[in-house]
Amino acid sequence: MTDRGIILWFTGLSGAGKSTLAEQLAPVLSARGRNVEVLDGDEVRTNLSKGLGFSKEDRDTNIRRIGYVARLLSRNGVAVITAAISPYAAIRDEVRASIADEPCEFIEIHVDCSIEELTRRDVKGLYEKALRGEIENFTGISDPYEAPEHPEVRVNSETQNEDESLGDIVGYLESRDLIRGDAS
Amino acid sequence: MTDRGIILWFTGLSGAGKSTLAEQLAPVLSARGRNVEVLDGDEVRTNLSKGLGFSKEDRDTNIRRIGYVARLLSRNGVAVITAAISPYAAIRDEVRASIADEPCEFIEIHVDCSIEELTRRDVKGLYEKALRGEIENFTGISDPYEAPEHPEVRVNSETQNEDESLGDIVGYLESRDLIRGDAS
Repeated sequence: MTDRGIILWFTGLSGAGKSTLAEQLAPVLSARGRNVEVLDGDEVRTNLSKGLGFSKEDRDTNIRRIGYVARLLSRNGVAVITAAISPYAAIRDEVRASIADEPCEFIEIHVDCSIEELTRRDVKGLYEKALRGEIENFTGISDPYEAPEHPEVRVNSETQNEDESLGDIVGYLESRDLIRGDAS
Repeated sequence: MTDRGIILWFTGLSGAGKSTLAEQLAPVLSARGRNVEVLDGDEVRTNLSKGLGFSKEDRDTNIRRIGYVARLLSRNGVAVITAAISPYAAIRDEVRASIADEPCEFIEIHVDCSIEELTRRDVKGLYEKALRGEIENFTGISDPYEAPEHPEVRVNSETQNEDESLGDIVGYLESRDLIRGDAS
């Protein structure tokens, strides 16, 4: 029998830690016997959305494409991890609704972190630039970010270390019987 | 164990019968226990490639996107059927090469049919328009179609009926042990 598909939909500001957690989560799920695919924001932009910008319309199109691919994979039993900012609640909910009739679960995971902390980290120097007004449509600064009100899981990269966040996510999946217990 | 993935890549002129065969093939494979997804040319243009036109560059981008999604699905054991015209040999070969290291097979299926016959059928009235010069970049008339030289399977919708073509495809898959024998 094919496993029940899961879409693990990370959302959060740039630099909050979505991709890092996605990459750490993938091998954990593989070790528990799941087929896993990670659809990282940057990788998807290269493969599916080259030419799209960061206007609301283009962002929505990008997220719908990720949602389409995630749906195809998850209804074939794959555990799909997405890690795009996905700032707009309506489009995240649209993706959730699109799999309502499929044999799979949509798990929204909010990676929370304050703008202050992200500006302090500023690994890629983007927040400084955005605050100087040099980047249009920068989520959280010059573009909105609509945090989910009731995500299935909320982690916080400011108050938790990565292991703690990962533990919260895996614990949630275990509690829902979406992954097998750790046999190791 | 996950089944070995297959990409069944139909190629052929508009109206040759790719989508029809794809839709008939899908339930046959499902009945043999395979997970199946059909990536039809039109559906993919809606979901992944809205805004792209029919220039060589845009067509190549469209085909690469189909190839990307087909690769993700097939490496998770899905039998993926694609049914886009995919006129350029180099891009089809690029998709084939992209799964060389994946646990799956690329099966190119050429649905052959002469322009004369397609113009006679002309279900959508497109060939007449194209011959009048009213459609730019119409494959086979005002745009090239590079037929595969050595496809895994070649069927001909002019000399075969649909059951015969389908039989050739299923027979090939059985001969390669890519689907189980018919238990019905």
